Order: sequence, then structure tokens, then C-alpha cells
Amino acid sequence: MLNIAIVGASGYSGAELLQILLRHRSANVTQLFARSAAGTSVLETFPRFRKLMNARFEAYSPESLKDADLVFLALPSGEAMEVVPEIVERGMRVIDLSGDFRLADHKVYERYYARPHSAPELLAQSVYGLPEFNRSAIAGAHLVANPGCYPTGILIPLVPLLRDGIVEPEGISINSISGTSGAGRKNSQELSFSEVNENVRAYKVGVHQHIPEIFGGLQRFAGCAADVAFVPHLAPLTRGIHTTIIARMKQSISEPQLHDLFHSWFVNEPFVRLLDGRPPEVKDVAGTNFCDIGFKLDASSNRLYLFSAIDNLIKGAAGQAVQNMNILFGIEETEGLL
Amino acid sequence: MLNIAIVGASGYSGAELLQILLRHRSANVTQLFARSAAGTSVLETFPRFRKLMNARFEAYSPESLKDADLVFLALPSGEAMEVVPEIVERGMRVIDLSGDFRLADHKVYERYYARPHSAPELLAQSVYGLPEFNRSAIAGAHLVANPGCYPTGILIPLVPLLRDGIVEPEGISINSISGTSGAGRKNSQELSFSEVNENVRAYKVGVHQHIPEIFGGLQRFAGCAADVAFVPHLAPLTRGIHTTIIARMKQSISEPQLHDLFHSWFVNEPFVRLLDGRPPEVKDVAGTNFCDIGFKLDASSNRLYLFSAIDNLIKGAAGQAVQNMNILFGIEETEGLL
Amino acid sequence: MLNIAIVGASGYSGAELLQILLRHRSANVTQLFARSAAGTSVLETFPRFRKLMNARFEAYSPESLKDADLVFLALPSGEAMEVVPEIVERGMRVIDLSGDFRLADHKVYERYYARPHSAPELLAQSVYGLPEFNRSAIAGAHLVANPGCYPTGILIPLVPLLRDGIVEPEGISINSISGTSGAGRKNSQELSFSEVNENVRAYKVGVHQHIPEIFGGLQRFAGCAADVAFVPHLAPLTRGIHTTIIARMKQSISEPQLHDLFHSWFVNEPFVRLLDGRPPEVKDVAGTNFCDIGFKLDASSNRLYLFSAIDNLIKGAAGQAVQNMNILFGIEETEGLL
Amino acid sequence: MLNIAIVGASGYSGAELLQILLRHRSANVTQLFARSAAGTSVLETFPRFRKLMNARFEAYSPESLKDADLVFLALPSGEAMEVVPEIVERGMRVIDLSGDFRLADHKVYERYYARPHSAPELLAQSVYGLPEFNRSAIAGAHLVANPGCYPTGILIPLVPLLRDGIVEPEGISINSISGTSGAGRKNSQELSFSEVNENVRAYKVGVHQHIPEIFGGLQRFAGCAADVAFVPHLAPLTRGIHTTIIARMKQSISEPQLHDLFHSWFVNEPFVRLLDGRPPEVKDVAGTNFCDIGFKLDASSNRLYLFSAIDNLIKGAAGQAVQNMNILFGIEETEGLL
Repeated sequence: MLNIAIVGASGYSGAELLQILLRHRSANVTQLFARSAAGTSVLETFPRFRKLMNARFEAYSPESLKDADLVFLALPSGEAMEVVPEIVERGMRVIDLSGDFRLADHKVYERYYARPHSAPELLAQSVYGLPEFNRSAIAGAHLVANPGCYPTGILIPLVPLLRDGIVEPEGISINSISGTSGAGRKNSQELSFSEVNENVRAYKVGVHQHIPEIFGGLQRFAGCAADVAFVPHLAPLTRGIHTTIIARMKQSISEPQLHDLFHSWFVNEPFVRLLDGRPPEVKDVAGTNFCDIGFKLDASSNRLYLFSAIDNLIKGAAGQAVQNMNILFGIEETEGLL
Repeated sequence: MLNIAIVGASGYSGAELLQILLRHRSANVTQLFARSAAGTSVLETFPRFRKLMNARFEAYSPESLKDADLVFLALPSGEAMEVVPEIVERGMRVIDLSGDFRLADHKVYERYYARPHSAPELLAQSVYGLPEFNRSAIAGAHLVANPGCYPTGILIPLVPLLRDGIVEPEGISINSISGTSGAGRKNSQELSFSEVNENVRAYKVGVHQHIPEIFGGLQRFAGCAADVAFVPHLAPLTRGIHTTIIARMKQSISEPQLHDLFHSWFVNEPFVRLLDGRPPEVKDVAGTNFCDIGFKLDASSNRLYLFSAIDNLIKGAAGQAVQNMNILFGIEETEGLL
Repeated sequence: MLNIAIVGASGYSGAELLQILLRHRSANVTQLFARSAAGTSVLETFPRFRKLMNARFEAYSPESLKDADLVFLALPSGEAMEVVPEIVERGMRVIDLSGDFRLADHKVYERYYARPHSAPELLAQSVYGLPEFNRSAIAGAHLVANPGCYPTGILIPLVPLLRDGIVEPEGISINSISGTSGAGRKNSQELSFSEVNENVRAYKVGVHQHIPEIFGGLQRFAGCAADVAFVPHLAPLTRGIHTTIIARMKQSISEPQLHDLFHSWFVNEPFVRLLDGRPPEVKDVAGTNFCDIGFKLDASSNRLYLFSAIDNLIKGAAGQAVQNMNILFGIEETEGLL
Repeated sequence: MLNIAIVGASGYSGAELLQILLRHRSANVTQLFARSAAGTSVLETFPRFRKLMNARFEAYSPESLKDADLVFLALPSGEAMEVVPEIVERGMRVIDLSGDFRLADHKVYERYYARPHSAPELLAQSVYGLPEFNRSAIAGAHLVANPGCYPTGILIPLVPLLRDGIVEPEGISINSISGTSGAGRKNSQELSFSEVNENVRAYKVGVHQHIPEIFGGLQRFAGCAADVAFVPHLAPLTRGIHTTIIARMKQSISEPQLHDLFHSWFVNEPFVRLLDGRPPEVKDVAGTNFCDIGFKLDASSNRLYLFSAIDNLIKGAAGQAVQNMNILFGIEETEGLL
């Protein structure tokens, strides 16, 4: 039985983490930290946990954190890096759901996150937690940087094609459509129902903090300095990200061959599902840790349409974090996640 | 041509007012006041007005308000009463969309709005702006208290039945379901898309500030101290209020007779529509100043089901305010509103 | 391990049943029947089950149904009664999710369901599957009539108050607000997104087929011929029912006493949660088998506001069906449901 | 005053047309044709028109159509071409909202619409009704092919850039996100609320019937055989299309220069709005005939992000049709549309 603490447990990712860990057979959540809700019952913030658990949020301080086998950080980017060093120092393993330790270069971090990095020395030992391409490194990690929601849905279908030289690394366009829960649990007029409902908009065009993470992932896992354009959109749904990638074929390959290629990449992956013929839909992955992928080859234009769908709070955050935990501790990878 | 100022123009009701006045043939909006947006272009807050208008918000002060034929107040309750006295004093007519001048008794106001009333002396001269039952008083008013959204949808169908002694005044239950725009344009985690979507909840049960307004309206227009229970609900839509009223019949009356009764009450009302046989739907009134009403008589249980639907921002706020303006200035009542 | 067949497995309730049974440790789904999808893979209809299961729908006939410990019927009302007799005859236990065997009197059925009942002789042996009030009868049943979604959310909070004589049985008004999944998976212009979104409407006023079921439940469990008015509404959400009940107090009782009363009724119920002070919200029960209840006493008007929230597909259908299965076979009642 | 008939008036585009024409000062709608609703009141299908109009749908036949100045066809593609020849023959002007007369080559039509074209001889005289680029041809047309919703939102921002050689014609990717009303008013399980809500999906990838229309428009108005990839998506909103176009710059040009270029193209266009700095949002064009456009230049990657938003039922259908009518008859182009 693992003793687990969650820091930043009062947000959407924190709650999702809690929900998953409740049904995990090897997890024992020992401490829940939250700033403004400190001292109150978890049930006040999340009434949906009534009869399922009961605990109080504590205010985090290095002293208040008891020894644990694993600490999940579900803090906003910028806050996680203030806390990680002291926990790592104490020898506890950390899975950080923020963006603070995902980029190798702190200068890139500083450009995209618009703040200095307070623990750049930890970037080198941080392991990027995308199991599909990095499982063995994760298994030995002390600090796992849990991937961003968009990069997860993008890297899983795209890495194999670039790695195997199927598509050109230039001129790749990526459009993602996200629900609102990705923006977190906060006061915001922009994210109010009246503003989001019956609306669609692109946002952070060319400046989204996940851009360098996508580049970094392609470099790391596909060995390729790809030239990708990424545009995130907000649509009126709570959960889920749908991603459409358009790329030019480098080799002549048939749809069945492409299917085989994906199959051989993912046949043993418990959370990647390859669809035949139909594009994935958000509703089929909502509430699950799956990344569904599909594609369509347009031979006449030599173009490949590639699609993925994930639940941003699960495969894009808390579910993937638990998948990483399972790898880290040699537990069945699907435990708590099916 | 009327010169019109709007104080509190950067909220949803203010924007709706602006939109209606843009197509009104006798209205000339001369000043727009907003606190936090003061100094900025209206287009920054409401990009949807591009190519339709251009103006800047000003900071309100008694000195900055130029003489106008009419001042609309679209401020939150509690702020309006700070401003109304000085405008009335200057002899300008006021239509106040807040709840500050709707209740006759400042003690009741203080109980339900949880603040002292700063201008109780004006309550006596304030005229309740529900044209269907108070048209002639409105015509001569200096200060019109524009009705609340819930009371509008409740009083229109219910007053005739109580006035004519058709239903018992005891044991009336009223359930309303509202969209989110009624809560205004503000930062609020509770009103965020992630919290409102795929959710329904009752709120302010037994303490909603519209309760005394409903009682007051029934007293005033139906001459009856009715005993009504009112429960407002929030559902995942932006605009509209659906109201269901359940009452016990006092007299034996047939559906056709009831239809005739409503018909005779509303045949000349430009904004009340009586439906035959089918209950009203929010989508049919969205974007309009109509109040649709329908009913169903259950002879076996001697019970009447009464329904209404309005757009909370139009008949429930800005549209009714313009209807009141038209009455006030002897303009065709439907001008700007069809 | 129980061998289980599902007839009518291609609708929303069928899919939910399948989903729950997949994680149930004592259930082995052996056959899935569906009419129009017969012969196709379950994954074609429900891609969300990829990597979780694989099976084909079969066309139902008495001959094709192999011996099973339990047959769930997730057919529309009117179709279930054609199938139930032959299954019961064969000695297999049946949990029927349709409305066909919920009413004691076939004449009442015929009036509300507008069709003759083809198996009235089975009505007497059918057991109404509301565990909170009928657990011991369910345990010995051969044919369980799984309750309707509205009656479930209504009876659970209301029965204790009538049974214990807390509220008057006259003049009770019930307003429920439902999502669309309750209407089932079908072609319908009325249920299209364009018609349901940004809309609210009441429907089947005074004629809804759940009305006699509510009356019957109150009679059976509260021993009381209550006089209730019920209005169902459709709102733009997929899952969930919110119910508001307004009743008059019969005895003077305080909020804490009422809380104690509910507590003593439900303290051992695994799926009823009593809220303190706040009304229940649909989002807190979505995806769960819980029925959340809350109340507010208005001493001045001597009126009680009672609320409940359920997930219509789970506690209102498939979850309750599995809860009944667990009772029927002496399995831990929460198995598969937490 | 123009006498106007609408054939296919019971769909969403038909209703929108009716709504716009009701407030048009030179339009007199004389006949409304609808197949299945023939003989019934318009108010039965569209209760929202109560107190605004009253008319009955007629069954269309060549004999039942009286002489009119203009006939709008709001029929599905495939049905319009059956009717257009006889109306054109009689010398009446036609604005066809279907896709039947938008493509120059009937073979291309037959490939994308999967049916033979029954009136290919009329394709040559049909004029493509995109006022921004084709106003003078529209003015003299007898048969106007009203553009598709996606092509409208794509051609308006893209034509200027290709025409002026600003972006490369190769490797342009276009992702559009649409609401459900574009699919029309029909029975469809796929378009039911339960399937669309909390979901996003791409559809008709590489085979959408608007693809040749986009190619044709670029050829016609930009003189350019562009190589574009187009992926349409369905998201949970009723109205609106958001389009994101990613293209590579051909010339070095600054954001202000690009702004000037767009400005000079559209300064006199009443329904194109160029945004400064912020991407357009669907909510700002909902209910209007505007096409909002915005862009972002990424100098480092030499890439241009181009955005547009329209209301699919207005600028993407009925509004543009009325704009074309105004041009056809020399009426102020904005009449009925602001």
C-alpha cells in the first residue's frame, strides 16, 4: 500500500486524482493540501465525494508534509516549482501535473510561461511522463513531469509517423478543440457559462505554453525538429480535447499499411485505441484514460488527416499521472484506470 | 428624438439595452457610464457592436451626467439607490432595472436585500413598470422600477387568475428555471461553464429577493394576499426563464372558458402570447420581448398547471425597460421591440 | 459468477448496464440482444467499449436465449411485456427496466401507456425494485420491475415524510427537470441538439406515465393516498434529474429534527446521501448510483422544500437494476456501483 | 414592394429567411411552400412567429406557384435542381440556398453530391452569390447560387491573401468548427442532444461537398489553383462556424501592412469586420450577417494564422440570401440585415 499526498487537491485535476485513487487498490491517500480551502472538509468543496471519503484539506508547508511514498503536485504552473525542490530533497518521489518541469531548457520555460524558473537545476533530472514513449525512463524517475493535455493528444498519434518517416516534418498543422475544465477551477468572467456557451474561439495563438512542449516531445521521441503550427480552441463542453493534425506524406503508403504501422506501435499500449475508418469522438473517451486515434489518407493530395481524442482531466492530467505512478511502483499499469 | 443615458452599461442588461436602442427610431443614446470599463471603447467590452456603433464608457458622477430625457440604470441592486435621488432631483426621468425601488416597504427591502435602503423616501413615488397591469401609472411616472425577471414571468399569467377568483390564493407553488445571464456579467467560479454545464440546482430557496416582489405584485394587481411558494433553479442555458405554476381551482371552469378569460385579459397586449394546448418553450421567446403563456387544466384533481416563458434579458430586463420608455414618452409601445 | 443476458442492449440504459457489469466482480455477460443492431459488433454501436469488451448483438428469440441466471430487459415499454412471460416461464429471473410491470393494475397501465397489457397475470408477482423501501421483497423476487427515473427521485425523499406523518398528503407539488438521455437513443427532431439546446419546456403535463407509478409507490411505501401534482421538464443537459417537492408541514418540527428523521431512515442506505443545508446538484450525482437529498423548512409559511438529484441512467435505471441484482443474489449491494 | 415566395420554408434556413424578411421594408412574402407541413399553419411549426405573422404552408407544384418577383429555394441539395428549371423558365428570379447550382462542372457535382445533376444546362448561367467578390455579377443574375456556410467563412478571409500573392497557395490547412443547425431540421439520432452534447468530432473528412466549392471560389476570385486541406468539425453549439486557416507567407509583410491590405479590401463591405489583435468569436456574430475576421502573423515560422466567424444560418445562409436579394433589386444592401 502506497502512502500518497496530493498538494493542490482542490482544483479539477486534484479532484480527479482523488477520484481515481479512491478506486486504486494500492493507494492510500494520506494528506490533501489546498491553500484557500485549508482547514475545511473535502466534502465542502467536492460534495460528490460524500459517502466515498472524508478528509480535511491542510495548508501546505514543508513541515506539514509527512513522509509519503509519492507526492502528486496538482498546483498551477509557477507554484509547483516552489515546492518540488524541498520534496525531492527529502527523497520522496514526485509526479508534477504542472508545466514547471516539462521543458528541458529553463530559458524556453521563461519565454513561454513568462516568469523566471526557480529550480532550473531540477530540469535535467525530471522525466517526461508520457508512458507510450518513455516508459522505461519513468520507471526509474524521482521527478516525473506529467505531460500537458494538448501535447498528450498530439504526441501519441504524431510521434510514430515522424519517427518512421511517414510524414514530412515540415508544414504540419495542428488544431485542437478543448473543453473548459482544462482552464481549471477559478473565478473568471471569460470562462463563465454565459461567455462560453454558444461560442467558439481560438486563444493564445502562437504563444500557448504547450508549444515548446510539443516541439520538445517530437524532438525527444521522434528525433525530429518538426515544424508544426498549433492552434488551441475553446468550445462549449466541459471535458475533452479533440485534435486534428494535417500533414503531408513523405512516402507512398496505403491506409492498411498505415493501420499496421500504428497497430505495431500501440498494440501493447493499454490506453491507446486505434480506430478503423471512423474519426475518434470526445464522448467515447470522456471519463476514461484512453487516447483514441484515427486517420484518413487522401492519396490524391498526398495528405494525411490524423485525429485524436482524450479526456483532458484524465489521460490529459490525473489519469496519466496515476498511470505514471503505477509504472513508478511496478503496479499493473491499468490499476485504478479501467 | 429622445436623449438617453445609460448608467451601468457594461453588464448584460446594459448591452441588451444598447442593442435595442440602436434600432429604436426615437432614441439617441448620448452617454454610457460604466465603472471599471470607464475610458475604454464600448467595442472592447462588446466586440459584437463593431460597425453598429462606437462610443466610450464614462465614469459616472453627478457632474458628468449631462441633461437627458431619460436615464436608464442598469446597475446592480444596492448601487442604483445611491444614484437615483440626484438624477430624480434634477428632474430627469429614470427607469431603474435594479431591485432597489420595486418594493413599497424599505423594511422588506432591507430584509431580502440584506442592506439598508439609502433612499426610502423615493419608494412611494416609484412606479412598478409592469405594463400589462400598470400602463397608465407608468405613463405618468418619473421613476419607474423595472420588474425583476422572475416576477415578470410569474405575475403575467397569475394575476388574471387571482384577480378573477379562478384559483385559490393558498397553496400556489411556483418553480422557475433560469439561464445564467440573469446572474450578470461577472467573475464567479460558481457560474463558470465547468460548474453550470451538465448541472441543475435550486438556489436561494425561500430567501430570493424576488419573493417580496412577487407578493407585492399579487397584492397590487390581483388585490390578494396570496400564499405562494417560489423556487428558482439554474440550468445550463444562457438566456430564458421557464416558469411552472401549480394552483388549485376555486371555481369550476372549462379549458375553453379559461382560454377566453386569458384572451380577454391579453388580446390587446402586444407582448403576451397565449398558446393553445401546448406549453410554452424558452426557445420561442429567446431574443424577443414576448411572454408566452400556456396552461393545462386537470379536472380530476381540480388543479391548474400554468406556464410561462420569457427571455430574462429582454422581457425580464432591457426589453421591458424600453417598453416602459415607450409608454413614458407616448411612443408606439412596440417600437424597437419587434 | 452469474451468467447474465441483456435484451435491448443497444439503447442508453443497455449500454450503461453493460458498463456497470464490466466492472462487477460477479457478473459474466453472456448474451446481448438488440433488434436493429443484431449481427453487428457492440463496438460499432458503442465505440467507447473498445479494449474493454467485445461481443456481437444477437437477434432475440425465445430459442436464441440460452439459460442464464438473470435476464435484464432494457427494452422500451410495450416491448418488454411481450418477452417477459416466456423468460419467467423458463424459471429465469428477470429485472425489467421498462414500465411494463411497475403498476399493479393493468387498467391503469392501459390508460397511461395507451396500449393493452399483454401479460396482466404477471403484475401480481412483479416486485417493485426500489431497494430503499422494498429490499426484502426484492430479495425473493423472480420478476423485478425496476423503477422509473422520476419515481426514484421522488419516492426516496418523499416516502419518509408521508409515512411518518410529517407533511400533509394533500397539495404536494413536484417539479422535475430532466436531461435528454432519459428519452432514449433514437431519431427525433424534437430531441435534436438544435431544439433542446438553449431551451426548457414542460412536457406530458398531467399525462406522464410515471404519475400512477408515483401514486402507487406512495400508497405502497407510505400507506397514503397522496394528492400530488407532477410536472416533468426537459432542460439542455444529457444526464440527471433534479426534483423539487413542495409540501405543507403537518406537524411542527425543526430542521434538526427533520435531519434526524431522514438520517434514521437512510443511515444504512448505501446510495442515499443526506445533505446539510445545501440543496443537491445534478453534477454531484452524475455518473453515480447516489440519490442526494436536501431540504429547507420555511417555518413562517409552514412549508417544506424537498430536493433530490439522481443520474437518470444510473440510480434512475441501470445502476438501480444492478443494485437489485445484487440484492437478488445476495451480493454486496454496492458491488460494481462505487 | 417585392412579392416573394419561399420554397422549402419549414427548415431552419427557411425560418431564418422568413424572420429576416418580416423586418425587411421592401419584401412581401406571398407564398410559403413546404412538403410535409403543407396545409398547416406556419405557427404550428414555428410557434415563435406568433403575433408576428400568420400564413399556411402550401404544397409546391409548378401550378401552385403564383408569379413572384423572386423565389427563394431553401430546399435540401438534390431537391432544388428539380424545381429551379421551371421557375427560371417562367422568368422569375431565383436565389437557391442549396448546393445544386454552386459548382461550374456537373461532373464534380455528381462526385461530391453522389447523385446525377438533373439541370446541368443551368450551371453556366448560375451566379455565385458571394457579394464581397461577385457583387456586379449578382446584380444582373437570374439564378443566384447562394454560397455554402463553410465556403463563406473561408473565402472571405482567404481570397484577398491569395489574390494579392501574400500567402503560398500550397499547404493551406483549414479547420472549421460548426454548430448543429447547419445540418438542418430533421430526425437524426446522430444529431440528438445526447450525442452532440459534451462531444466534438470531425466528419466527412476529405469528402465534404463544400470542398469543390472552396476550390472553385479560390479559382474564380483569387485566380489560383490553391491546394487546401479542409476538415469540418461538429461541436455542441446551435449556431455559428469558427474557421482557422493556417498558411505560409509568400512575402515578408508586417502585421500593420496586412491589416491595411484587409482594410482596403473590406472597408466598404457592410458585413465584413476586421478585428485588431483579437481572434473573432462566434458569439459576436451570432444572430448577425457579419463575417468577422482576424489574423496573427508568426514571423519566426513565416506562418499566418487566419480566423473567421459567421452565423451559419445568417451570413452562411439566409442573411446572405437576403443580401443577394438586395443587390439583385437595387435595394440598400443592409436592408433587413442590421
